[in-house]
Amino acid sequence: MARTGNKPSQKPRVHVTHSSSIVESQLVTPARIRAAAKKFPGLLSRVEFVYGDDPASLEASLPSTDALLLSGNIDLSRLKARAPKLRWIQSCSAGVEKVAPVIPDDVTLTNASGVHGPRGGEYGMTAVLMLNSRVPSFVTNQQAARWEQIHTTPLKGKTLVLLGVGAIGGEVARLAKRFGMRVLGVTRGGKPHKWIDRMFRPKQCGQVLPKADFVLSTLPLTPETDGLVGRAELDLLPRHAGIVNLGRGRVMDYDALMEKLRKGELSGAVLDVFYEEPLPANSPLWSTPNLIMSPHCAVDDESVYVERCLDIFFDNLKRFFAGRPLNNVVDTRLGY
Amino acid sequence: MARTGNKPSQKPRVHVTHSSSIVESQLVTPARIRAAAKKFPGLLSRVEFVYGDDPASLEASLPSTDALLLSGNIDLSRLKARAPKLRWIQSCSAGVEKVAPVIPDDVTLTNASGVHGPRGGEYGMTAVLMLNSRVPSFVTNQQAARWEQIHTTPLKGKTLVLLGVGAIGGEVARLAKRFGMRVLGVTRGGKPHKWIDRMFRPKQCGQVLPKADFVLSTLPLTPETDGLVGRAELDLLPRHAGIVNLGRGRVMDYDALMEKLRKGELSGAVLDVFYEEPLPANSPLWSTPNLIMSPHCAVDDESVYVERCLDIFFDNLKRFFAGRPLNNVVDTRLGY
Repeated sequence: MARTGNKPSQKPRVHVTHSSSIVESQLVTPARIRAAAKKFPGLLSRVEFVYGDDPASLEASLPSTDALLLSGNIDLSRLKARAPKLRWIQSCSAGVEKVAPVIPDDVTLTNASGVHGPRGGEYGMTAVLMLNSRVPSFVTNQQAARWEQIHTTPLKGKTLVLLGVGAIGGEVARLAKRFGMRVLGVTRGGKPHKWIDRMFRPKQCGQVLPKADFVLSTLPLTPETDGLVGRAELDLLPRHAGIVNLGRGRVMDYDALMEKLRKGELSGAVLDVFYEEPLPANSPLWSTPNLIMSPHCAVDDESVYVERCLDIFFDNLKRFFAGRPLNNVVDTRLGY
Repeated sequence: MARTGNKPSQKPRVHVTHSSSIVESQLVTPARIRAAAKKFPGLLSRVEFVYGDDPASLEASLPSTDALLLSGNIDLSRLKARAPKLRWIQSCSAGVEKVAPVIPDDVTLTNASGVHGPRGGEYGMTAVLMLNSRVPSFVTNQQAARWEQIHTTPLKGKTLVLLGVGAIGGEVARLAKRFGMRVLGVTRGGKPHKWIDRMFRPKQCGQVLPKADFVLSTLPLTPETDGLVGRAELDLLPRHAGIVNLGRGRVMDYDALMEKLRKGELSGAVLDVFYEEPLPANSPLWSTPNLIMSPHCAVDDESVYVERCLDIFFDNLKRFFAGRPLNNVVDTRLGY
């Protein structure tokens, strides 16, 4: 995607696309592109932007597309044949489990990891606080018009286990330390982290989970994380423990989780992500006791979401023209 | 209640009483009295403690009772006649709206104000965070198996109005400042407070409420606060505002609140206190949308509740023997 000459039609072409399921506040529109480009002087005129979100205009544009700016789930099969010039895909999502496996080898995939940090951290802390106050149980009792006092103790000194420590996990850790919690982290590399008392690797889960008062996962869905928190892992948790999942649903065995919540073998759960989204109306999760759910939106900050995604995109575009390495490059083999 | 001589029966008598509605973790038992007394050497032997929680033993004991250590709601009518020697009542509750009006003039009433600070502040902050994330709406939608994404923005820069700034309100203010909020306070005296950006008096509510993203009340029930937040005051709030009540139910017009929640004229509410407790099973509050309720327990810290109450009691007992002014004295005319 180097500069290719003076003819306008030979500028690198970026196709901006999104699926119809995207909410208005998260659409990448021409106006938002222009607004974001102001921070990167001289860049806008060097690129041709094409907007086409129906399958037909996408198909017409792909053969001459150099880069995709992608939001939502669109058909990305057989990209090599459909978009032979494609060299770069910038995803507006942090999780790229559907894109990473179908990327041709010579295409660089970058994601939006980091956009959810402040708001996602705030919601993660909210979820831990709700679990500590037994709000999921209050809600279940309220539905039955049942007055049942539950007394708890402050968060201070309790243990939070973070599965995955990216932008959201790191911000949850910072807030949890302010509440006086002990924070343990589990990541692939087990690298030390400023706000985390002790780091572990996934194979040490058996050692970490029994210590947890709360477990919060922000893990992406990758071959390694798929089903990581199964029935055996849930069985390692104390009965009073509470669970939060803000990453991807399939990291956890939700059947086992539902069973444990129904039996009172966990004190509560807060879930924002599911195997299938929207969650089907007949899912037994909707009516599981001591469970609070949000529809995959709780970590998104509507005021800055697109702006932050476009900051990453334009910064990467600048890097591309300068021949410097892109930020947020996904290791498609690892899946994040 | 000065020392009255050498005969054991002439030691000042403290009657320890509670109603049957008290949960085990909040009972003042002889063992808990002994444990608490260890911090106050020499004091235990100077007092005779009597425990009797049924009406008959209370009635037999009252004529020779000098002080009452009181938890729960017991019959306190005609105290002057039933307990002529009574000079002091230490309540194990922070709110004393049922006790204050029936106290004889020559009896000092002290309350447990302050015991709820750390845990109550934590729950107040939890409630504000829940409202900011629209958790009450998620819960309402979950009951209808409705997938409806709601995107919000972080707390930072939003405005929290505290009605009442005691131990709980002050702790909520401290935590809210850490989340970058603007905090406004409304108290009877309007005195400046370390964690509050600006203080107002009750008559300035009309000026303050339109600025609120969130309103949190910890007000006691007194002649001045009864009905303070009526329909007119609720109508001053922006439609996106959320409401928390951790003080006393009757401070707010819950009929008007329910109506506004049903109409979507407020974004949500979190209530821990009610006009009648337990809340009757046929109350329309149970099924009001965008409302999360807890059964008057969310601010209690079960691990330290009795211990903190007894710290206040023994410290006051020591002050009583030393002729020094008691702490936490209630102005029975003001009601707190």
